[in-house]
Amino acid sequence: MAELLPPALTKLIEALGNLPGVGPRTAERYAYYLVRREPAKAEQLASALTGLHSGIQYCPKTFALISSDEDVSPLYSDPRRDKKTIAVVAEPLDIISLEKTNEFHGTYHVLGGLVSPIDGIGPEQLHIRELVGRIDEDTVEEIILATNASVEGESTALYIQQQIGPDRTVKVTRLARGLPIGVDLEYADQITLSRALEGRQTL
Amino acid sequence: MAELLPPALTKLIEALGNLPGVGPRTAERYAYYLVRREPAKAEQLASALTGLHSGIQYCPKTFALISSDEDVSPLYSDPRRDKKTIAVVAEPLDIISLEKTNEFHGTYHVLGGLVSPIDGIGPEQLHIRELVGRIDEDTVEEIILATNASVEGESTALYIQQQIGPDRTVKVTRLARGLPIGVDLEYADQITLSRALEGRQTL
Repeated sequence: MAELLPPALTKLIEALGNLPGVGPRTAERYAYYLVRREPAKAEQLASALTGLHSGIQYCPKTFALISSDEDVSPLYSDPRRDKKTIAVVAEPLDIISLEKTNEFHGTYHVLGGLVSPIDGIGPEQLHIRELVGRIDEDTVEEIILATNASVEGESTALYIQQQIGPDRTVKVTRLARGLPIGVDLEYADQITLSRALEGRQTL
Repeated sequence: MAELLPPALTKLIEALGNLPGVGPRTAERYAYYLVRREPAKAEQLASALTGLHSGIQYCPKTFALISSDEDVSPLYSDPRRDKKTIAVVAEPLDIISLEKTNEFHGTYHVLGGLVSPIDGIGPEQLHIRELVGRIDEDTVEEIILATNASVEGESTALYIQQQIGPDRTVKVTRLARGLPIGVDLEYADQITLSRALEGRQTL
């Protein structure tokens, strides 16, 4: 079918098809939408893409994404941030989810993934050494392991706990597992329900 | 939350959020995927976007999308194409769907939309006059109205029929309405089922 479309359009459909979860039909829809809009829309997206990698970098402390003209993430440098409490997350975007709760005033540490042998990601590829370094440097009092409630999230949390070791006085916690708000008991899966039972709290 | 992300990333998330059906979460996912890939991936997409409008144009005959260095769509100029049969479609991408059937060997005419008063699209904005012109010019024998089975599709088809008028000898047909293949009768909606009854065929 490729010869039915002009090469400039085929090229765009292919490039859009590289985005995660975007199949050929969705890529066609995105591309055709841009065809119909004024060229400035496509140019705007093109310029945002061109400026992406030159405009960002990883914070050397938290490994959050920061602007290329910043030295360190404001999530670390801001004096209102409690440097003695670190939430450890897998990816930079997880920070946004936690910030939206408005309940956390500590700082962050982005691992850059989770231990996942199937994807070839070992613990040495994550920023775990740097995390242990921060614990000592900033005399951190609490590490909140805010990794996913998945096998990878759990094993990464365990590995980090081992690396911190029993000799450091830092308190290591992790996010509670239990029933998500608004979900009926009958729809909760067995593992979630087991965790909710284990973690039950007195009223 | 915007200040949590570097401006280069926010700009990209906003630009991606303009694509149809892409909400903030999906835009974040696309953008972060591009952050993690090598800059060449983002550059490839940027260059496809930049070359889009300069690389395509509308065919002056069929209004299909063609490469900017072509004069007329191969769907019209190809001698194997039967110019006396025209499938009338709303959008250029509808051509691909029909071509995939491998059962149509005529040529096409893209309307550029459907009559939709709610979206401010009147018949004069569609390429209907040009279609009537082609009927006379190429002594067309059959017009297949291949518009959607929606209110807009039906009213556009009716309007085209009126414009062709009773004096021209061209046969005007439209795609059959009925049960889609593989769908159970019990799941078919009333209107589809009514059309399937009306259009019932002797075995």
